[in-house]
Amino acid sequence: MNNSFSQNRRQFLSTIGASTLTIPTLTDAFGRAVSAQPAPDRKLGIALVGLGNYSKNQLAPALQQTQYCRLAGVVTGTPAKADEWMKKYDIPKANVYDYKTFDRIANNKDIDVVYVVLPNSMHPEYVIRAAQAGKQVICEKPMAITEKECQSMMDACNKANVQLAIGYRLHYEPFTKEVIRLGQEKVFGPIKFVEASDGFRIGDPTQWRMKKVMAGGGPLMDVGIYAVNAARYVTGEEPISVTAQFSPKTEPEKFKDVEETLFWQFTFPSGAVSNSTTSYTTGIERLYAACEKGWFELSPAFGYGPLKGRTSKGPIEQPIVNHQAMHLDGVCKDLLDGKKLPDHVTGAEGKRDVRLLQAIYRAAETGNKIKLV
Amino acid sequence: MNNSFSQNRRQFLSTIGASTLTIPTLTDAFGRAVSAQPAPDRKLGIALVGLGNYSKNQLAPALQQTQYCRLAGVVTGTPAKADEWMKKYDIPKANVYDYKTFDRIANNKDIDVVYVVLPNSMHPEYVIRAAQAGKQVICEKPMAITEKECQSMMDACNKANVQLAIGYRLHYEPFTKEVIRLGQEKVFGPIKFVEASDGFRIGDPTQWRMKKVMAGGGPLMDVGIYAVNAARYVTGEEPISVTAQFSPKTEPEKFKDVEETLFWQFTFPSGAVSNSTTSYTTGIERLYAACEKGWFELSPAFGYGPLKGRTSKGPIEQPIVNHQAMHLDGVCKDLLDGKKLPDHVTGAEGKRDVRLLQAIYRAAETGNKIKLV
Repeated sequence: MNNSFSQNRRQFLSTIGASTLTIPTLTDAFGRAVSAQPAPDRKLGIALVGLGNYSKNQLAPALQQTQYCRLAGVVTGTPAKADEWMKKYDIPKANVYDYKTFDRIANNKDIDVVYVVLPNSMHPEYVIRAAQAGKQVICEKPMAITEKECQSMMDACNKANVQLAIGYRLHYEPFTKEVIRLGQEKVFGPIKFVEASDGFRIGDPTQWRMKKVMAGGGPLMDVGIYAVNAARYVTGEEPISVTAQFSPKTEPEKFKDVEETLFWQFTFPSGAVSNSTTSYTTGIERLYAACEKGWFELSPAFGYGPLKGRTSKGPIEQPIVNHQAMHLDGVCKDLLDGKKLPDHVTGAEGKRDVRLLQAIYRAAETGNKIKLV
Repeated sequence: MNNSFSQNRRQFLSTIGASTLTIPTLTDAFGRAVSAQPAPDRKLGIALVGLGNYSKNQLAPALQQTQYCRLAGVVTGTPAKADEWMKKYDIPKANVYDYKTFDRIANNKDIDVVYVVLPNSMHPEYVIRAAQAGKQVICEKPMAITEKECQSMMDACNKANVQLAIGYRLHYEPFTKEVIRLGQEKVFGPIKFVEASDGFRIGDPTQWRMKKVMAGGGPLMDVGIYAVNAARYVTGEEPISVTAQFSPKTEPEKFKDVEETLFWQFTFPSGAVSNSTTSYTTGIERLYAACEKGWFELSPAFGYGPLKGRTSKGPIEQPIVNHQAMHLDGVCKDLLDGKKLPDHVTGAEGKRDVRLLQAIYRAAETGNKIKLV
């Protein structure tokens, strides 16, 4: 792995003409050394696959602010969208693909990174095809619907010597980084209890998120995953068991295919416990950690910002940033530097969460406590 | 019932010399008609049974502020405490009892109301003895350990034609009254989800609260009951099923007798659901209700105040009051007026909560969903 990664690093840096750059001591928004004025040709070219809401309203605007990457191409099945995006973002026709022509992206030197923003069920296919095209890959969360699919995606990226990042934008967000520090460094003593919940009232019942075959489930797959990830990142531990409960469906027609509200409880090796709620029928968004000597909280904790936080000692003060720009720049800076991405934003992390999502559903379906080790 | 209550009302009002008072149209802190200047002899004489923390630090100071009642006597097994209280609160020796002499309180015209502030396991005996002594009764929450005991207590009070209030002080507290209004009047639409949790890190492991035989259980009996009561008072509904989970014990020696942390989930007839945590090892105190068109929250939600609240439309503004004084005056005003106490502060309400506490333990012990109807 390390060998193939190093080899790949040299290939990749050579491809983008960056391997011989010297890095002065100026620092970027991450406090890391960067060149004084990154030349435009050092920005990685990103192609967005799937032009839904997240691409349109979050990623494309963020890519106008990024320092280490730029919007270089799109992949869409809708010709009208292709026209609109080419015009709006000055994208050359050569960088626009549909799902049939997608694999030809392998020959496009403008595109360094493929960001898969499709419905969950399509993540494996397009991550694997992107890897096979020799592109670095970013994939939205949840990484996939099953753990097995996650493994296939990781295998494909490893085989192609490309890196795979998952859309864990919060790991680059200052309030989140601060609560990770507070938890993992035991600033208020060991964590005893976490309440992490994320839910909202979903609109259009015909969207893919309401179809089990495309989404893999309901709110747990979409926003509950934030609470799963958060319980792990504040404790720095992997849960050893889980119990879970479906709520009854108050709108059975709307929720005929996926759960409406779901609760789950994790136990961690240290004895810390968590209790969580996710819902498509009601709003809640909070990450609360009670420690032996105090507590800390974010609410809102998982949305696109601004997040807001406080502790038993007072408010958490952090800069307000564009989450997506921080995420894209964070990933692309490492790719440009030829560094291995931090484990907790990679496919390995995506797979850990997907395994837990599957276990939560199994616990809720059976009523049993599911052991995870 | 109604007949015996009316009969009792006449007896009681006659006893305290209040039956022939005319009530002018001035109003009190509750917005209810009161006499312009209540004469001191209209204040009900209260005897506190059990001089632990709650009596010493909350009830006795509150009784210095009350309009409709006063601290008239004490019942304690500790002579040193008796001396201290007599001196501090100018209590005549004739109004001081121990647990053997307690029943003689029947002959004491200074004492109108007995407030039982003993460990949970002793509530039934002392409530029943107080009723048999012909006194009005207030009993701390939880009313008792078992539903059956609650019924015995209610029966004894009915038989003696006295009223029984439970220490549900929050029903007289302005922030709580406001969230009850927001929930039950559906100001933000129907409630879909409630998170109600109460826990703290307990100190002295030798206290009676840590002994199952005296407390009936751990944090659920002590503070979890607030979350049970709250889920009911904001929805205005009775749960139809419950699931619950014990957390593992991280301090098994300390928690050898009672649970350390416990989660439970209620389902209500409307489809509303709740998720709750109680703990003696970690702090959490919140009542959050997500409705179809907004949300409201109190945090702190259950402590002695000040409580703090907000809604999806902004902060909840309410006066800061002494909870115990409001509770004592609220109950005693009704007793003085010869009114039947509101159902949700009586033994009937206490019994509903105790039934649910028992069901939560059963659900956690068996891992089964327990039906409640």
